[in-house]
Amino acid sequence: MSKKISVKVTLKKGVLDPQGKAIEHALGTLGFQGVENVTQGKLIEMDVADDTTDAQIKEMCEQLLANPVIEDYEIKSA
Amino acid sequence: MSKKISVKVTLKKGVLDPQGKAIEHALGTLGFQGVENVTQGKLIEMDVADDTTDAQIKEMCEQLLANPVIEDYEIKSA
Repeated sequence: MSKKISVKVTLKKGVLDPQGKAIEHALGTLGFQGVENVTQGKLIEMDVADDTTDAQIKEMCEQLLANPVIEDYEIKSA
Repeated sequence: MSKKISVKVTLKKGVLDPQGKAIEHALGTLGFQGVENVTQGKLIEMDVADDTTDAQIKEMCEQLLANPVIEDYEIKSA
């Protein structure tokens, strides 16, 4: 059997987020007022074997899914 | 005042997800076994004015944040 895991990867506070800024600007251009602090992150969902440990999932994040220098990640069982 | 909104954008079922496949393959190469059905989506977080209606947020998704032809989106108040 397998379990569903989702990993949310976001830029650390203070890291420039040009994608977020672009979205914010575009929303303004489209006429949506009052939108602020837009950030764009990644959401990775996957099925892992039931006996996969939290440490292994953390390792996946550190090695591949996130760049721990500039990104934070949050692991959730979904 | 403003409220926090998060929008999760994922590819519709049946749409090819090369990013997900690449992650799945890379995890296998790194020695993580039993990882399946990897998908990568976007997570957009933003502050909107308190009087922003759900319909307006839906409109932002349809017009800019998601491509409704190939992507599903889910709006959450965070």
